[in-house]
Amino acid sequence: MKKEDLIDCHNRIAPYVHRTPVLTSRLLNKMVGAELFFKCENFQRMGAYKMRGATNAILQLTDAQKEKGVVTHSSGNFAQALSLAAKSLGVKAYIVMPSSAPQVKKDAVKEYCGAIIECEPTLKARNAVADRIQSESGATFIHPSNDLNVIAGQGTVCMELLQEHPNLDMVIVPVGGGGLIAGTALAVHYFSDDCEVIGAEPFEVDDAYRSLKSGKIEINETTNTIADGLKTQLGDKNFPLIQKYVDRIIRVTEKEIIEAMRLVWERMKIIIEPSSAVAFAAVIREKKSFKNKKVGIIISGGNVDLKNLPF
Amino acid sequence: MKKEDLIDCHNRIAPYVHRTPVLTSRLLNKMVGAELFFKCENFQRMGAYKMRGATNAILQLTDAQKEKGVVTHSSGNFAQALSLAAKSLGVKAYIVMPSSAPQVKKDAVKEYCGAIIECEPTLKARNAVADRIQSESGATFIHPSNDLNVIAGQGTVCMELLQEHPNLDMVIVPVGGGGLIAGTALAVHYFSDDCEVIGAEPFEVDDAYRSLKSGKIEINETTNTIADGLKTQLGDKNFPLIQKYVDRIIRVTEKEIIEAMRLVWERMKIIIEPSSAVAFAAVIREKKSFKNKKVGIIISGGNVDLKNLPF
Repeated sequence: MKKEDLIDCHNRIAPYVHRTPVLTSRLLNKMVGAELFFKCENFQRMGAYKMRGATNAILQLTDAQKEKGVVTHSSGNFAQALSLAAKSLGVKAYIVMPSSAPQVKKDAVKEYCGAIIECEPTLKARNAVADRIQSESGATFIHPSNDLNVIAGQGTVCMELLQEHPNLDMVIVPVGGGGLIAGTALAVHYFSDDCEVIGAEPFEVDDAYRSLKSGKIEINETTNTIADGLKTQLGDKNFPLIQKYVDRIIRVTEKEIIEAMRLVWERMKIIIEPSSAVAFAAVIREKKSFKNKKVGIIISGGNVDLKNLPF
Repeated sequence: MKKEDLIDCHNRIAPYVHRTPVLTSRLLNKMVGAELFFKCENFQRMGAYKMRGATNAILQLTDAQKEKGVVTHSSGNFAQALSLAAKSLGVKAYIVMPSSAPQVKKDAVKEYCGAIIECEPTLKARNAVADRIQSESGATFIHPSNDLNVIAGQGTVCMELLQEHPNLDMVIVPVGGGGLIAGTALAVHYFSDDCEVIGAEPFEVDDAYRSLKSGKIEINETTNTIADGLKTQLGDKNFPLIQKYVDRIIRVTEKEIIEAMRLVWERMKIIIEPSSAVAFAAVIREKKSFKNKKVGIIISGGNVDLKNLPF
């Protein structure tokens, strides 16, 4: 992907997504001894950066493809993002969701007019049902993270951050399926001179950390983390970008995630989801490496179930 | 108070307080059928607008007075505000708090270096202890809401809102001790042409509603509301301003407050305290009167105990 591709993508999706603010907090700066710039995708439409990638992917379809709709499998933010992006663009969205997905997530997809197709809660069933929808309806499958159009869309988050703060020393970003970090790494590569890209991951799902060590895509045997957006694994399209451009990954404990989330809620008065707190938790955990640096932190989203908080 | 007094006050406190953002939400606009402009004092220093009035009151003291410190009685945001404002200005703050105040509030005052003096949880004890501190230390008493310097400071919230959105049809604001609504009413009087000022109050503590009806300051026999910032009563300095400039007061139920708070948390991804949700709850309750209007909503603060949420 070229620099121009990212610029074109940013222009293409601009009418359909928010340009989110970059917030700062004197108090949190003081606490960690660094200058922190929080890029707040929790204020993005439907509450997460995934709106960007979903919108870009749909906009890249031909008219004939758009007419037949799009399909994905996700029980998280991408399901909502694809539903809302499709709705905004007058396209039908089929969302394959495990029958075990929480009602609150099903309701969110329905609110954005996504058509839910339930499947058994296994990877195999999920793929099989998505395949069936594709062949029955002719809808185009869009992967939540392993798709270059999606990756370009997610890269626009960091592009905007660097437009406003070109001299960042580091950008830190949570790692789930790899779409956001791959897009972020590309944006840093093209739009900054000397900025590190650091991933943040829970110890409980440290597949990306292990993948970078081993040189091949690793999976998580268990996914016992509060950061429910980070349970997925890397893909063959984003992993090479991550290998090439990401400097390192910091792992954090569940307790550190909850504490970072509480700090942001209490001190910044903004609602961020656990997956977003992982990036700030990594900065707190390794304070020394961030000392006196200008650090961009990507707040990926703010979708939480208020009935089920960890505080 | 003259227009110039408000302008001077705004300039005086500017170096010590944040200019807070005005946020909007397409989704909430659509829900109520009006254009809403949320002035977000939850992002103010120490998390509430009270920082403004406290700062202005201290800045108006003589050097000799400043040397002897300030004293107030409050168990809420004003205790924290006066402590932090005093700390910023190198002044000592004595805070009289009922012994029954929650530990989380005492801790917040301590964090801002306020000196806590505990008293029995009665109005009489509170006043007696504050009197004693004044005569022993020579500190100046600053009332949380019934003080013209405090009222001017609180008025700068709406001044800023009107600078950015001069054509509002209405401004709606929660009513507690009366300082915020009195300042807001003055700002609307001096800085807009044809804008209504509406107060919002829980049914459970509708003393201001009753005071406007009866023409004298009424009190609350019980204060059984989640909006803990609104339990106090009006004073002889702010009531005349409220009588003169406030158009009406809308009362809301506890259920409506919690629902409004949940909507703002979930949809806008910002943390507001129950007292702030009262203003938005009033807009939802009386949707019809706000239809197609441009409505300013003052979000007074964002200090909540995350361990004790109503969801």
